[in-house]
Amino acid sequence: MDRAAFMVGFTIMSFASLAIYATGSKAPPVRHHTLLHSSVPFIAATAYLAMAFGVGTLVNSAGVATYIARYVDWSVTTPILLSGLVLTAFHERGKAGEVGGFLTSIIVLDVLIIVTGLISSVAEAPLAKWVWYLWSCAAFLGVLYLLWLPLRSIALERGAALGAAYVKNLTFLTVIWFLYPLVFLVGPEGLKIITDPASVWAILAMDVVAKVVYAFYAAANLDKAIDQHMRRV
Amino acid sequence: MDRAAFMVGFTIMSFASLAIYATGSKAPPVRHHTLLHSSVPFIAATAYLAMAFGVGTLVNSAGVATYIARYVDWSVTTPILLSGLVLTAFHERGKAGEVGGFLTSIIVLDVLIIVTGLISSVAEAPLAKWVWYLWSCAAFLGVLYLLWLPLRSIALERGAALGAAYVKNLTFLTVIWFLYPLVFLVGPEGLKIITDPASVWAILAMDVVAKVVYAFYAAANLDKAIDQHMRRV
Amino acid sequence: MDRAAFMVGFTIMSFASLAIYATGSKAPPVRHHTLLHSSVPFIAATAYLAMAFGVGTLVNSAGVATYIARYVDWSVTTPILLSGLVLTAFHERGKAGEVGGFLTSIIVLDVLIIVTGLISSVAEAPLAKWVWYLWSCAAFLGVLYLLWLPLRSIALERGAALGAAYVKNLTFLTVIWFLYPLVFLVGPEGLKIITDPASVWAILAMDVVAKVVYAFYAAANLDKAIDQHMRRV
Repeated sequence: MDRAAFMVGFTIMSFASLAIYATGSKAPPVRHHTLLHSSVPFIAATAYLAMAFGVGTLVNSAGVATYIARYVDWSVTTPILLSGLVLTAFHERGKAGEVGGFLTSIIVLDVLIIVTGLISSVAEAPLAKWVWYLWSCAAFLGVLYLLWLPLRSIALERGAALGAAYVKNLTFLTVIWFLYPLVFLVGPEGLKIITDPASVWAILAMDVVAKVVYAFYAAANLDKAIDQHMRRV
Repeated sequence: MDRAAFMVGFTIMSFASLAIYATGSKAPPVRHHTLLHSSVPFIAATAYLAMAFGVGTLVNSAGVATYIARYVDWSVTTPILLSGLVLTAFHERGKAGEVGGFLTSIIVLDVLIIVTGLISSVAEAPLAKWVWYLWSCAAFLGVLYLLWLPLRSIALERGAALGAAYVKNLTFLTVIWFLYPLVFLVGPEGLKIITDPASVWAILAMDVVAKVVYAFYAAANLDKAIDQHMRRV
Repeated sequence: MDRAAFMVGFTIMSFASLAIYATGSKAPPVRHHTLLHSSVPFIAATAYLAMAFGVGTLVNSAGVATYIARYVDWSVTTPILLSGLVLTAFHERGKAGEVGGFLTSIIVLDVLIIVTGLISSVAEAPLAKWVWYLWSCAAFLGVLYLLWLPLRSIALERGAALGAAYVKNLTFLTVIWFLYPLVFLVGPEGLKIITDPASVWAILAMDVVAKVVYAFYAAANLDKAIDQHMRRV
């Protein structure tokens, strides 16, 4: 356990939450994206505070730590990030039922990635660990399928500018999200190639990219796209 | 515990999820129903995998097993099935706030059915067990009231075709859902008239009907109704 | 533990749920508010039943009880009450994505108030207890900011009548909600100035005001405002 890393994470995420809100658009049709993106690091800050205090940290008989706070964080923040993408794809169109159906199915798969990842982490028998890891990857494939095929088509139907913003944001998120199962795989919860502190610092860096850098990047792409979209309409 | 039943459940539910998606409509206004219905057996598959590995299985001092994975599954899948019915009742109409209000209240009651059922299952004192069972039934009555009275009226206002599809799907779901409290009542968590394996296989059969057969039945009714509705409008 | 208080709470909340539904509007555009407000005491009744049976009641080494059922109740009922306010602010307007973004961010902050309050309650080390208490207050400030600034502006843009109803309901809820962190602070989970039974009865009284009295007050304000709004439009 690495308390310094957790306090660094708490500090960065707290300030990032305020910074994303302070610099983001406060007017429709983007202000709800600002709210979503600034709530994500607030949740992460709370999870880092929990890890710093050891709240929800399990240590198994082999001395391997599972930080449950992290899985709880992810099971709320990744649905919010996905909601931002889904709302970009349907930007100001799409009936409530249809948007809700896409949100529900993608969030179900996404939460299953995380729950099954947590089961894989705490499983001590290798068979169980790897079956759950593979099932988690299967759910991840489902999320990628929905994002890259039906939702990308819907985004492109909304026009070139919005479609391009959707694809840029989706590409960023896909690349950074791919690192998580890889770090899990080589980390103490998986093949134990890297140590717990190495894994904690790696995930901290990835969290900052996926939650903070992404928030600014996604907002810039969306602002630009809506600007172009408005001028054309 | 009956590992064979759980692996059968996992296999059926995994393939059913793919089959429902592969054969369902991919175009509006039905594609979000396809997504909802195919996510339901994916969740059930995950729960059966958990039961096969004994994840979340509690055994009390009298040797009675409570499969928590099953209750977690139900607390997500039954709200999704109810959402499909609510969205059918409001088909492409209904303000977001109003649909959201109905969804929230029916999902609250529905999740309370399952949470109080779980408390009843693990309660060892008879008084507690039956008070919680009755409170669970009270919440079930609330769900049935909302589905059969206000929501049925809303569905019938949408026109004869959609109203008929709503009533058909609701009838199917009502009949199959009534079996769950009965099997609980006679099973090892209740009066112990039937054994644990008998109860596991019975619930597996009911799950296949309520989640897989229902998905195809509901989609067929909805497709036909929208077809008729469109021709009339 | 004070079983009498819990049974009183269960009885009041059960009847209140039926009374709110029976007396509330069953027609659009208010009926979904009736549903939301009557589901709140039904959840509270279930939580009081759980506390009466000792379900989810933790007692630490110093003999201090934490009633987890209460925190579970709050983490569902306060989002529902906030949803009622958000839907009043956006009354029948507001795109689904925008309303959803406000709902998501305010519910995230609200649930974090309660989860961090629960961590504060069970923390035995004073540093941890007070850090979590302060972080819970920070999340509360975030909720108040959203309610009193951006959402109040949105409500006032909808017209004088709806804006006034929003402000009245918000004022009521703000005052009563402020009492909860105060009672926590002086109660057995905090500074131990008042006893457990005193705290249980105080919170029961506050719950009745915040969930039952508020439901009737909010419905009256909303009915009147919509009446005035309709006559003007």
